Amino acid sequence: MDSYCHYRRFLALHPVIMDIIMITNTSEGQMSKAHEYAQQHRDEFRQQLHQLLRIPSVSTSPQHAGDVRRAAEWLKTEMLRIGFESAEVIHTPGHPIVYGEWLGAGETAPTILIYGHYDVQPAEMIDGWTHDPFDPIERDGKIYARGSTDDKGQTFVHLKAIESLLQTEGTLPVNIKLLIEGEEEVSSLNLGAFVSANQDRLKADVCVISDTAILAVDQPSIVYALRGLTYMEIHVHGPQTDLHSGVFGGTVHNPAQALAEIITALHQPDGSVSVPGFYDDVLTLDEEERAELKKTDWALDDWAKATGLDHPWGEAQYTLRERVGARPTLEVNGMVSGFYGEGAKTVLPAKALAKISCRLVANQDPQRIYELVRDYVAQITPPTVRSEVRLLHTGDAAFVDRHTPVMQAAIQAYTQGWGKPPVFMREGGSIPIVANFQRELGLPVILMGFGLNTDGAHGPDEHFTIEMFHKGIDTVIHFFKLMGRK
Amino acid sequence: MDSYCHYRRFLALHPVIMDIIMITNTSEGQMSKAHEYAQQHRDEFRQQLHQLLRIPSVSTSPQHAGDVRRAAEWLKTEMLRIGFESAEVIHTPGHPIVYGEWLGAGETAPTILIYGHYDVQPAEMIDGWTHDPFDPIERDGKIYARGSTDDKGQTFVHLKAIESLLQTEGTLPVNIKLLIEGEEEVSSLNLGAFVSANQDRLKADVCVISDTAILAVDQPSIVYALRGLTYMEIHVHGPQTDLHSGVFGGTVHNPAQALAEIITALHQPDGSVSVPGFYDDVLTLDEEERAELKKTDWALDDWAKATGLDHPWGEAQYTLRERVGARPTLEVNGMVSGFYGEGAKTVLPAKALAKISCRLVANQDPQRIYELVRDYVAQITPPTVRSEVRLLHTGDAAFVDRHTPVMQAAIQAYTQGWGKPPVFMREGGSIPIVANFQRELGLPVILMGFGLNTDGAHGPDEHFTIEMFHKGIDTVIHFFKLMGRK
Repeated sequence: MDSYCHYRRFLALHPVIMDIIMITNTSEGQMSKAHEYAQQHRDEFRQQLHQLLRIPSVSTSPQHAGDVRRAAEWLKTEMLRIGFESAEVIHTPGHPIVYGEWLGAGETAPTILIYGHYDVQPAEMIDGWTHDPFDPIERDGKIYARGSTDDKGQTFVHLKAIESLLQTEGTLPVNIKLLIEGEEEVSSLNLGAFVSANQDRLKADVCVISDTAILAVDQPSIVYALRGLTYMEIHVHGPQTDLHSGVFGGTVHNPAQALAEIITALHQPDGSVSVPGFYDDVLTLDEEERAELKKTDWALDDWAKATGLDHPWGEAQYTLRERVGARPTLEVNGMVSGFYGEGAKTVLPAKALAKISCRLVANQDPQRIYELVRDYVAQITPPTVRSEVRLLHTGDAAFVDRHTPVMQAAIQAYTQGWGKPPVFMREGGSIPIVANFQRELGLPVILMGFGLNTDGAHGPDEHFTIEMFHKGIDTVIHFFKLMGRK
Repeated sequence: MDSYCHYRRFLALHPVIMDIIMITNTSEGQMSKAHEYAQQHRDEFRQQLHQLLRIPSVSTSPQHAGDVRRAAEWLKTEMLRIGFESAEVIHTPGHPIVYGEWLGAGETAPTILIYGHYDVQPAEMIDGWTHDPFDPIERDGKIYARGSTDDKGQTFVHLKAIESLLQTEGTLPVNIKLLIEGEEEVSSLNLGAFVSANQDRLKADVCVISDTAILAVDQPSIVYALRGLTYMEIHVHGPQTDLHSGVFGGTVHNPAQALAEIITALHQPDGSVSVPGFYDDVLTLDEEERAELKKTDWALDDWAKATGLDHPWGEAQYTLRERVGARPTLEVNGMVSGFYGEGAKTVLPAKALAKISCRLVANQDPQRIYELVRDYVAQITPPTVRSEVRLLHTGDAAFVDRHTPVMQAAIQAYTQGWGKPPVFMREGGSIPIVANFQRELGLPVILMGFGLNTDGAHGPDEHFTIEMFHKGIDTVIHFFKLMGRK
């Protein structure tokens, strides 16, 4: 298998890891007591996750600030209950960070910093949910709830792996530092400062993040690249107030139309972004990497099933996988102007708003992208309206070294958890903190995803496959054991 | 003065009217008892109007149905109180019609059918109102409230003129049929059927409508052309649900972007509408009419003051006045897609909606315009999304004969009420019922407007100039007296 060849090549580079794998392979198929515990407590683990999913910790909505805090407190209590030596809810100028430690493996054992987030995207029935997004249900082998996959469910995998080990072996093979933030969906506004101010406390050998997808239920994968983000608003201002479209229509440049014209001008007919300089710093894909990515390309059928569409869109000279993983994009996340309720109102709107975001790849600078978009919009705005581009937040793209020993431990853990070696992938989403951990703490970062791209993260009916939740726990137990043997 | 020349030319065509005016001129400056009554009850009249303005009779919102009915009942009670022989609230499949009669002038006297509407556009503080739109206040010589000018205030002018005459002279010089509908802002959905079914009952010599603007506080004008309307929704459907913009961005044609591209393609860079066939049936302006309209052209300064803008937009080969009065337009009344609340949501929306409306001129057919727009949008929609154009409602453009004797009476009434003869104008707004009255009842229609285009109709802080309310009452008393002498 192609991915296996890839994996063998890495092993050749790391004879020590090869030893580990050889040892492990001899016990392949044997379940540890921790795995048995996890097996026996399947239903209980999911019921506990349901409790966490019931808390609407929507970080972007000020009215949910209390819920966000409640989710933090719930996690702290749970961490202390399952045996963490310490756990606390740490104030920030925004939503709190939950941080806990178990350092009983001693100084000679490796230390793993696990990162997750307990805040979630907004979710309303009106967005198309078929049930209350904050009242989890299990159906067709899936847990449906906002945050089930992004990221409460994936974070909870680590808690349950730790619980399974502590409850059966009374100890862990590694030291654990668990950091769960409440602002990932609002660009981790205060995490950077916390990490900078706590470099000693967060010292570790590796950082593990489970907030990405794997390729398929039966095909684990490890993400080595994530996209960055520049989130902006374009405001178009026309007349000083809403006007009567009959009295003024035909003499005033309609701001909704002007915004539509600006949005249209942001792309070329070939799907590329028109903003001058946009692609200047993009790390070019070499033929080796394109060949590698091609092995796991997104089948048109799978894409069509996930989207409900027949015709893909975008840069035709790149594959679907490359378009989301290796190319930057510019999306309209929302727009609003004038009257859009039921019925008719013959208004000529005073203003129009679009929320747009650019997904960025290495080595694009999010701030520079904002400046380029801002300058281009200013340049194409006609004198008949006034426009303004506001920066909401940014996040750096991440690019992870595939050649570290801990990456090999992760490969082996997935191989044991899934019975199949993982493949390497680029992911289209953004976890800006990955770049932050790499930069501030000098840590190798392993993205151990347990979700699927079809989980509906950020959309209605978000869900997490029950089998992947449990396989994830098994995989993390394996990973801790493999790391402990280093 | 140009407008006066215009007026003199008409007089030359109608020697009978000239006689009327000569007679009237001899008594110019003399106030009748009815005028004195109106003068003495200024404050009381406005307090009564405030009561009506307090009822939020928003016809487009189902939740205001009870308020709409309450406004109808209030008017019926008021009509009976001031001396109407009959007044009733007439059920329709939608909002009710208020209808009342005073026929005491006898069969030899002319009968005037007065039309107005008591329903109003939606109004919310969030739209930019500086005070509650349904709690009228008087400030700087204006009454601020939703419906103050469009059209409760203008309709109330007639009630107060009738009251002033009945209270002082015990009679009216003309018979009155007063029809006030509750669905003008939703395209008079049920009025057409009512008019068709009540042709005998509504028989009259002239129909008077006060739902238009005059040129300026000190320059009365009479509107002889109104635009029609085709109100539509453009729906763009993309993926089956909202998607994660990171996971799918770059492979899916964003519906908000696709809608923007469609909206952009509806106009040419020169401001004309791109829809093929759109201008086919437009009644061409001849040089005489253009010259006439030029006399009252919209000064750029006035336009700039009303809009808060520096640069007009639209078809450069037409004057501002011609663009709103004699040219059809296509406006975006609203649009919505994805996430537009506070903060950031990195969603790739499943769908996008725009409300668009075309203002039409004689002799465009609103249904045909819908079909042209529908076919054009279908033609320019790429296979990457699905679009749909829905027709919400239509209204015919109106074109009034400027050469009728009653038009001359109206000219004289304004001349007496304002101390200055009116000028003729084309209006950009729509009162589809004008075409309806002309067609169904064979009546000459006189548009006696008392509002201003700067009144903020359909927008926030709608207002009605107090002086124009009172001058309007004086003018209508003059008009009834002039008509009664015929």
